[in-house]
Amino acid sequence: MTIVHAWAAPSAGAPFEPFTYELGALEADEIDIAVTHCGICHSDLSMQKNEWGMSRFPLVPGHEVVGTVAAVGASFTHLKAGQRVGLGWMSRSCMTCNPCMGGDQNLCPTGEGTIVGRHGGFADRVRAQAAWAMPLPDEMDSVGAGPLFCGGATVFTPFLEFDVRPTDRVGIIGIGGLGHMALMFARAWGCEVWAFTTSDSKAEEAKKLGAHEVANTRDADRLATLAGQFDLVLNTTNAPLPFDAYMQALAPKGRFVTVGALVEKPVELGAFSLIAGQKTLAGSQIGSILTIRKMLEFCARHNISPQIETFPMNEVNEAMAHLEAGKARYRVVLEA
Amino acid sequence: MTIVHAWAAPSAGAPFEPFTYELGALEADEIDIAVTHCGICHSDLSMQKNEWGMSRFPLVPGHEVVGTVAAVGASFTHLKAGQRVGLGWMSRSCMTCNPCMGGDQNLCPTGEGTIVGRHGGFADRVRAQAAWAMPLPDEMDSVGAGPLFCGGATVFTPFLEFDVRPTDRVGIIGIGGLGHMALMFARAWGCEVWAFTTSDSKAEEAKKLGAHEVANTRDADRLATLAGQFDLVLNTTNAPLPFDAYMQALAPKGRFVTVGALVEKPVELGAFSLIAGQKTLAGSQIGSILTIRKMLEFCARHNISPQIETFPMNEVNEAMAHLEAGKARYRVVLEA
Repeated sequence: MTIVHAWAAPSAGAPFEPFTYELGALEADEIDIAVTHCGICHSDLSMQKNEWGMSRFPLVPGHEVVGTVAAVGASFTHLKAGQRVGLGWMSRSCMTCNPCMGGDQNLCPTGEGTIVGRHGGFADRVRAQAAWAMPLPDEMDSVGAGPLFCGGATVFTPFLEFDVRPTDRVGIIGIGGLGHMALMFARAWGCEVWAFTTSDSKAEEAKKLGAHEVANTRDADRLATLAGQFDLVLNTTNAPLPFDAYMQALAPKGRFVTVGALVEKPVELGAFSLIAGQKTLAGSQIGSILTIRKMLEFCARHNISPQIETFPMNEVNEAMAHLEAGKARYRVVLEA
Repeated sequence: MTIVHAWAAPSAGAPFEPFTYELGALEADEIDIAVTHCGICHSDLSMQKNEWGMSRFPLVPGHEVVGTVAAVGASFTHLKAGQRVGLGWMSRSCMTCNPCMGGDQNLCPTGEGTIVGRHGGFADRVRAQAAWAMPLPDEMDSVGAGPLFCGGATVFTPFLEFDVRPTDRVGIIGIGGLGHMALMFARAWGCEVWAFTTSDSKAEEAKKLGAHEVANTRDADRLATLAGQFDLVLNTTNAPLPFDAYMQALAPKGRFVTVGALVEKPVELGAFSLIAGQKTLAGSQIGSILTIRKMLEFCARHNISPQIETFPMNEVNEAMAHLEAGKARYRVVLEA
């Protein structure tokens, strides 16, 4: 019997408190991870507040987990005890549906979220289907690796899935937890990189992260000067956007991909903004297992590591408040 | 000096009257076509009424032209006098910009429309850049070929540009001038083909055209029963659509492509409808030169010909009224 020592919100919006629970028998396809680090994603906050109506309390968030393999189920041989691994938004997929069989396990319609109806990584231990625990490259530090597993995978996936090429001009909307990683990826991908921000104060930082150019889109006319320029625009924010203007900023055959859920209001645009120039508006959702493996290799090869601030895990409430106040530069990681 | 005998609307919404104009000297890259047939597209009607504010009067519509080469400019050797050719929406592109050089001449930002600021095919002769006049395959009848050059190209292009595969399940919204050709293309492409219509009366015809299944989407619940089913949905209509429901009907990684301009109201949908399942909403615009060439070969090989009704060209007003009344089954062609 394994007792997990975790931090849980007892009810919607309530602060985190120490919480223990028992893990049952390990299934043949599962592993346990002894948590050493856990990144905090904005969706941990949304889940704490039950903004999406799918939280179950007490809730143990944490889905940017890094740790070492503590126990391995009978049917898995590619991981061994003591090995460093990471775990992201998903902790299980069916492995038999068409998307799973086709390598798109992130699109499994019955996929299980690490913190949805089960307990995540704000804890000393977390369990998952072994396939979703990805070994860390040897050259990668554990402390900065966690944010790659959710935020990183989310912004890396569009580069592969929408066939971004090093000859492309790429715009990244938002310089935050996700956007700062997207800038690093786009630069290492070989692209011409633009950061779109509404905050002049982040311009210099955006350039350090990889942007060749920064455009302040608070000025609506600024976008208009960039008509026809971008092969890909990747939105990492939840703020309402002028979609027709962004479509105008795309080159012929350009793609606008949102990973931000834009919850405040629906997407609205004219159909002709898509038809003229054969443009695409698409969404993307975390990453497949192979995509995350490739991202880890890519990060190791290009020496890419998220910019993080660390808090001890027992200061999880302070860490969460820091994130909620918009002060994170750019990702917060809890250390066990 | 060549005198062209045409049919022109003298002002917005006015009926067509006989109209003559002079063609100047033939440029080196141009040809003249002696018109034998000209399809009528809904956009001819929109231009007659100046619905898009870009009509110049007197207006000679007609951009689904078929005829024989009557004169060839000095610099072109791939067409010769007497050869049968067709001409669609575009009559010129710059041939030097990136889209043109990349083979996407239909996306040329300075491309010229056959009936935009110049005179089209409701006439005994029409002029165009030679590159946009495509030879007809020998086995193709002239009478039915015209509608391929605008309507046909418009619905054929998404099959190539959005990588439709014969293993895909494809839904076509609308069974009309464009939709009936899309059904034939999708069937010949080897796909599982569904027709989406709001008219039960067209169900049997849709099956004859190529649909394996027909869904009446006037019943909003019908779409909900098809969740997760379609790899591609192609919209050929201008009617407002329930975009979230159609996104729901897409399989993971599914694409919704509109060629209908949906002018009545903006496209509106939730970003999460795109993010969940990595779905795409895109537009497509006529077709490139190579795409039209490939379409013509494909039609010849698969014996695909639009279903048409013919009118003599001097009954152009009656033909236009027939179209406007929604009576066309499915495309009207004027015969010189």
